[in-house]
Amino acid sequence: MIVTTRSINVDTNTTSDEAYVSVINITPQVHKYAMEEYISNGIVTLFIPATTAALATIEFEEGLVSDFKKIWSRLVPRDIAYKHKFLWEENNAFSHVRASIMGPSLVIPMANKRLILGQYQQIVLVEFDNRARSRQIAVQFMGE
Amino acid sequence: MIVTTRSINVDTNTTSDEAYVSVINITPQVHKYAMEEYISNGIVTLFIPATTAALATIEFEEGLVSDFKKIWSRLVPRDIAYKHKFLWEENNAFSHVRASIMGPSLVIPMANKRLILGQYQQIVLVEFDNRARSRQIAVQFMGE
Amino acid sequence: MIVTTRSINVDTNTTSDEAYVSVINITPQVHKYAMEEYISNGIVTLFIPATTAALATIEFEEGLVSDFKKIWSRLVPRDIAYKHKFLWEENNAFSHVRASIMGPSLVIPMANKRLILGQYQQIVLVEFDNRARSRQIAVQFMGE
Repeated sequence: MIVTTRSINVDTNTTSDEAYVSVINITPQVHKYAMEEYISNGIVTLFIPATTAALATIEFEEGLVSDFKKIWSRLVPRDIAYKHKFLWEENNAFSHVRASIMGPSLVIPMANKRLILGQYQQIVLVEFDNRARSRQIAVQFMGE
Repeated sequence: MIVTTRSINVDTNTTSDEAYVSVINITPQVHKYAMEEYISNGIVTLFIPATTAALATIEFEEGLVSDFKKIWSRLVPRDIAYKHKFLWEENNAFSHVRASIMGPSLVIPMANKRLILGQYQQIVLVEFDNRARSRQIAVQFMGE
Repeated sequence: MIVTTRSINVDTNTTSDEAYVSVINITPQVHKYAMEEYISNGIVTLFIPATTAALATIEFEEGLVSDFKKIWSRLVPRDIAYKHKFLWEENNAFSHVRASIMGPSLVIPMANKRLILGQYQQIVLVEFDNRARSRQIAVQFMGE
């Protein structure tokens, strides 16, 4: 069995986005790592060690990404009363709650050296924080 | 270590459903595969390579399944304005957004040759697309 | 390869909570188990074999936990009409639907004998049921 753990680094900034959400396509980097590892069959575990960002899959089309962001304004609005404000300059309870609901982990099976992903299915980092962040996503290959 | 990857094929159609959601119980097939594999301890990774369907667990009771569908009409309605409409006949942004939030993967541990599932907990495919689809769910066993 | 499966037992009770949600931090127990296992690199799979509770990660701060609970009252309210009521004393369709959306599993990679978790990221059991429950969370280590 082989286990290797790598990381993908992404700088994010949601402040210019109306919904304070940023969606970053990390699929090419995951494919690149998969080709470099000696694993034919097994899993790739992606994990974001953070409480205001999440991982997901989505068809990475501009209109759809915009729709996805807009839904978060509807589900977990920024402008309702929150209690999580220990530092005045943060005020990002909405970011935490959105990230918790989306979830930090994603497990994708590999077979015959290929990730089992849909034709239009992309792996994305979903940044929910309301300030610039540097993210490091763990990408772990386990298999044979 | 053993790694084997199989698939479950399901034809779906949500068009007769008011909420455009279909919930299909795939638990018996996963149990059948688990019995056929020589794995005592490890994981089963389920993954749907698609952007308009998801995987979940739920108590598979008719009233509850109906409640689950209805909530999606509330959370991500069909009748609000979406930008994802590159083909007129599609118009399924709501399907994509629902599937992204639910998520494509599910990992269930196995111990002593048994899936660790609750007594009433069933594994389901949740079809969110607004047209008939043929789905192929990856079911990968990894362990010893 | 090593595979070991353990469990964390938690007694929960949401009945004194306005939103009927209880968030329990299980991170110290997971870290304790991780230190006791002989795994340097691999995954920890957490799974709750239940249909009215879920697993998540969150910054475990009192104000934020309160915000998280409140959002569930907004997303999946208790006081709308549900069909899942086969026993009069249950009436917990909202618990099932919330748990299904949050999800029962969480996979966290380990590298160099450490869980890859964010500095403030805690692993929590989210109890959604409307009566006292005894929960047993599966914690499976797989790696080398």
